[in-house]
Amino acid sequence: MPVGTQATVKTTRNSDLTQMGYEMILCNTYHLYLRPGRDVIERAGGLHRFMNWDRCILTDSGGFQLFSLSSLRRVTEAGYSFQSHIDGSSHILTPEGVLDLQVLFGSDIMMVLDECLEQPSGRERTEDSMRLTLRWAERAIKLHTGGRGSLFGIVQGGAFPDLREECARELVDMGFDGYAIGGVAVGEDRERMELAVNGCVDVLPSDKPRYLMGVGKPEDLVDFTAMGVDMFDCVVPTRNARGACFFVPGGRLNLRNTRFRSDFGPVQPGCSCYVCVNHSRAYLRHLFGAKEWLAPILATIHNLHYFACLMEEIRQQIARGSFQQWRTEWHLTRESFNSDGY
Amino acid sequence: MPVGTQATVKTTRNSDLTQMGYEMILCNTYHLYLRPGRDVIERAGGLHRFMNWDRCILTDSGGFQLFSLSSLRRVTEAGYSFQSHIDGSSHILTPEGVLDLQVLFGSDIMMVLDECLEQPSGRERTEDSMRLTLRWAERAIKLHTGGRGSLFGIVQGGAFPDLREECARELVDMGFDGYAIGGVAVGEDRERMELAVNGCVDVLPSDKPRYLMGVGKPEDLVDFTAMGVDMFDCVVPTRNARGACFFVPGGRLNLRNTRFRSDFGPVQPGCSCYVCVNHSRAYLRHLFGAKEWLAPILATIHNLHYFACLMEEIRQQIARGSFQQWRTEWHLTRESFNSDGY
Repeated sequence: MPVGTQATVKTTRNSDLTQMGYEMILCNTYHLYLRPGRDVIERAGGLHRFMNWDRCILTDSGGFQLFSLSSLRRVTEAGYSFQSHIDGSSHILTPEGVLDLQVLFGSDIMMVLDECLEQPSGRERTEDSMRLTLRWAERAIKLHTGGRGSLFGIVQGGAFPDLREECARELVDMGFDGYAIGGVAVGEDRERMELAVNGCVDVLPSDKPRYLMGVGKPEDLVDFTAMGVDMFDCVVPTRNARGACFFVPGGRLNLRNTRFRSDFGPVQPGCSCYVCVNHSRAYLRHLFGAKEWLAPILATIHNLHYFACLMEEIRQQIARGSFQQWRTEWHLTRESFNSDGY
Repeated sequence: MPVGTQATVKTTRNSDLTQMGYEMILCNTYHLYLRPGRDVIERAGGLHRFMNWDRCILTDSGGFQLFSLSSLRRVTEAGYSFQSHIDGSSHILTPEGVLDLQVLFGSDIMMVLDECLEQPSGRERTEDSMRLTLRWAERAIKLHTGGRGSLFGIVQGGAFPDLREECARELVDMGFDGYAIGGVAVGEDRERMELAVNGCVDVLPSDKPRYLMGVGKPEDLVDFTAMGVDMFDCVVPTRNARGACFFVPGGRLNLRNTRFRSDFGPVQPGCSCYVCVNHSRAYLRHLFGAKEWLAPILATIHNLHYFACLMEEIRQQIARGSFQQWRTEWHLTRESFNSDGY
């Protein structure tokens, strides 16, 4: 799902996302709590009405933003104390308070507050943190029982498969509506990410959504789906777009490169997105060179279209029972393109 | 017409412009000559194909950009010598060369090279410059006779009505396809602008387009149309949009203002644009506060829609013979709104 940090997916209109078939966006509780503030969203009648998005909204717990944005944060049993990265004001986010906020937002999927650790962290530190996340999860689910919206637990435990497994088992015992694998995609290598996922994914019930947070690149979507993951969110398509990187079946093209100066072909031959139907690589390169607003706008449309098509293909292959074979071919096909994506 | 400086109207897609009914955009010859360069546009098969815009394109002569962007420019009888504002490289633009470029671009309306003077300038300097512009116009029209596309002459003469009139008469004698009034909207006050227009507009044939370059605000469109002007181009709707200024019947609203924090009404009640139909002032204010890409995108859509509707209304009132009465009412109606545009 695309990431609508500030109640918008960067550079896109809601109509773009619905046309591409996206059913859900992720919004950051931390950001929205600080700006525009809970009072504005409450008076608007919730986040769906505030941003006029009538499909699903998943809100995170703020744990990851506190981890990555706030240098002045402190974790206690109660929750997170922190200072705003905008104006330095002091705040506290507890497991109960974060859930309360997400209920007020009207989120369709709410995430429990979790502690996100820097990687790599030692075993003892990781275990302590995982147990705190479990205690927070328990406080949240007690409050939620019977409430509207779905509540997801978050598996922590770093790159220690046994801690991941233990955390997953405890969360499953609590009975969440879905389960996320958190504390990944925070700078660790692929091997550690696989350790984290492998440690817990099979413990999580296959009839509930299994959500790998903050992942990932196209190959991640393909490979982690093969490991049992059902849901992803990531800035990869939109952030790369703003850097002139376009996803194509052969990998990525950076259209800032001089070799595209007079390449009047579409970014991805055969692609049916607005950008590939209407514009050439040479024109897009010109827009990026001229620092035109339209450049990241068009790049984002293409990349989000690419990701939507990839996930749709994965779903169809799974439904047909041909996913594993398709996956092998998908990786082989990638290798067959030259560096210009032809 | 909207201004597509770098072969795009800032923040908009071509599909936005066609949906709003815009029939023509303006592209700057100076910018496109420097980047992407004539060779790229030539290989693309012209500017329409390069940017995939199948409606009209008007290209200016580069005179105004040389005046406003290049500090290292020199005017001689031959033309403009200048250094690129991008990389400092040396170039020369002559009346013939500029026309040649515009032919290569495939422009529907081409403008002759003119000298744009800083305002205010003395009478002697203005007269010398006007005569140079006339000699350049003569060189251009000799080259153009029989060529495809329309060629417009540009009336100069500062705020001296008699120079404006003389310049217009000489240009009319040369027989252009249309006539522009140039050297306006360069920082002078409204009175001087009216002097410039009044000096020449009645001399220009009413069966040929009369084009007031670089103008203007909504009230300018209304009032200068009343004086006989048929065509305008301006950055006002798009540049204001990027500054959070929205045009409404009561004037302008700056949605950065705190008083809109919980204003969940549309920017302009009754407006049928995508923004007013889908989003509130409070949401737009939030987007501007969060420095979101979507903020100027949405603002530009609203403002361009506002300007397109205004010009359509003007055309209809003229066709009905009720323009002058409507114009009086339009100004009165403006005054009746409060500062929140209600």
